Amino acid sequence: MAAFLRELAQCAARETLPRFREPIAVDNKEHAAFDPVTEADRAAERAIRQAIEERFPDDGIEGEEFGTVRADAARQWVIDPVDGTRSFICGVPLWGTLVGLVEDGTAVAGLLAQPYLGETFIADGERAFVESRFGSRDLRVSDCRTLSAARLFTTDPHLWRGDEAVGFERLLGSIKLHRYGADCYGFAMLASGQADLVVEPGLNSYDIMALIPLVRQAGGTIGRADGGPAEDAGTIVAAATPDLYDAACERLRGG
Amino acid sequence: MAAFLRELAQCAARETLPRFREPIAVDNKEHAAFDPVTEADRAAERAIRQAIEERFPDDGIEGEEFGTVRADAARQWVIDPVDGTRSFICGVPLWGTLVGLVEDGTAVAGLLAQPYLGETFIADGERAFVESRFGSRDLRVSDCRTLSAARLFTTDPHLWRGDEAVGFERLLGSIKLHRYGADCYGFAMLASGQADLVVEPGLNSYDIMALIPLVRQAGGTIGRADGGPAEDAGTIVAAATPDLYDAACERLRGG
Repeated sequence: MAAFLRELAQCAARETLPRFREPIAVDNKEHAAFDPVTEADRAAERAIRQAIEERFPDDGIEGEEFGTVRADAARQWVIDPVDGTRSFICGVPLWGTLVGLVEDGTAVAGLLAQPYLGETFIADGERAFVESRFGSRDLRVSDCRTLSAARLFTTDPHLWRGDEAVGFERLLGSIKLHRYGADCYGFAMLASGQADLVVEPGLNSYDIMALIPLVRQAGGTIGRADGGPAEDAGTIVAAATPDLYDAACERLRGG
Repeated sequence: MAAFLRELAQCAARETLPRFREPIAVDNKEHAAFDPVTEADRAAERAIRQAIEERFPDDGIEGEEFGTVRADAARQWVIDPVDGTRSFICGVPLWGTLVGLVEDGTAVAGLLAQPYLGETFIADGERAFVESRFGSRDLRVSDCRTLSAARLFTTDPHLWRGDEAVGFERLLGSIKLHRYGADCYGFAMLASGQADLVVEPGLNSYDIMALIPLVRQAGGTIGRADGGPAEDAGTIVAAATPDLYDAACERLRGG
C-alpha cells in the first residue's frame, strides 16, 4: 500500500510541481463565488485516476474535478489533486495532493504529498509516517488534553458561518494559539505532534478522506463536530487526544 | 554584500533548523498576551550579531531579542532571527530569518532565509533574487494595478484593531483573494510575483527593515498606510505597483 501511494504522489508531482510558481490560467468553478481551479488540479487528477484504473480496475474512484465512477464498489479511492488551490496560485507550499482509500465506508489508508517541500505523509493501514529530504519519521500526535494548552489550525476564520461562526469564536477564545492558511497541511502538523487541534467547517468528502487515516494512525481522534464519523465529512474536528476532541466539540456546539 | 548575507543565513540556519519540529521550550515575553520566544530565536540572533561584529565592528546593530548597540552609527543592521515564531512552534515552514541593512535611515539591502525550504531571498543593493534547491531566480513583482485582481496576504485578521480593523475589512471586500498566516513569507511571495499586495498592522522595525529592499529591488512599492516611509515601520502596505499601493492605502484609510 505504501509503495502504491508513493507512486501516486510521484504521478501527481509530475503534473503539479512544474506548474507551481509558473504563470498559469486560473478558472473559476462557481458563479456566485471564487472557487479557483487550474490545469495542475486537472492534470494531477487525471494522472492519479489512470494509475488507479490500471492497478485496481474494479475499485470506485471519486475525484474533486472529474466526479465518481463505480460508486457501488466496496473499495473507493477519494482524490483531491490539489487541496489548497488558493495557496497554490499564491506560491505558498502548503497545498497538498490527497488520496484516501475507503473500504466499506471506513477510511483505511491515505496520502498527503507536498512535492515542493519534498514531503510525503502516508497512512498505510497500520502506521502513519512522513518521508522527506530529512529522512523517514513515524508520525505521533502530541499528548495535549486541554484547550488552554492547544495550538489550533483552521484555514480561514471567514469560512465559519452563522451558529458555527459563534462556536468558532468561542473556541478561539479558549485555546493557546491559532494559525490560519494551512488547508490540509494543518492535519499533517497535527499528525506530526506540531499542532494539537484542527477544525474546519463544511468539508467535502475529497477534502478529508485521505486525512482521516493519517490522524487516526498517528494516534489522534477525528470526527464531525456533532460527534458523527469523520467519513461523513462536513464540519470536522481533529485532535491529539479524545479529551481535547470532546472539549473542542463542546465549545463549537455552545458549551 | 550577497556573500555576507548568505553567510548570515548559514550562521542562523545552524541554530534554527536543528531545533525546528523538535521539542523546544517556549517562553512568553509578555505578561498580558502570548508573545512566544524560543532558544532558536536567541541562538540565531547571537550567531548573526557575532558575524556582524567581526566583519563590521563600527556598524550599529538592532535585534528583536538583544536590543541595540551603536545606535548613532550611519550603518545599522536590523535583525529578526525568527520572524513567525508562532509558525516555528507549530511546524509550519513559513517563518524566516530577517536581516536588513539601513544606511542613513534608508533600507538598502536585506535577507529573508527559510532554511527548511532551502530558500534564501536576497536584495543586495541593486537587484533582488532567490536561491533555492531549484536554482537562482531574479525576483520581479507582478503588474497588478487593481484591487479587484489582487491576491492579498496578511498574517492574521485579528491583529487589526479599531479604525484600522474597519479599513482592513473594507480592503478585504475589494480584493480577489486573501491568504493568512504567512508572516514575512507573504512579502517574499509579493517580490516573486506570486502575490500582489501585503498589508500588516503594527510592525516593528525588525519585522520590516529586511523586507523593504526585497520589495523595492523586485520593482514593488512599499510604505506606511498613511503614506510615510516604510522605514518608520507601523502599519505597512506593500504592493506590486504604485497604483495598487495607492488604492490599498485609500481603502485602509476610509476611501
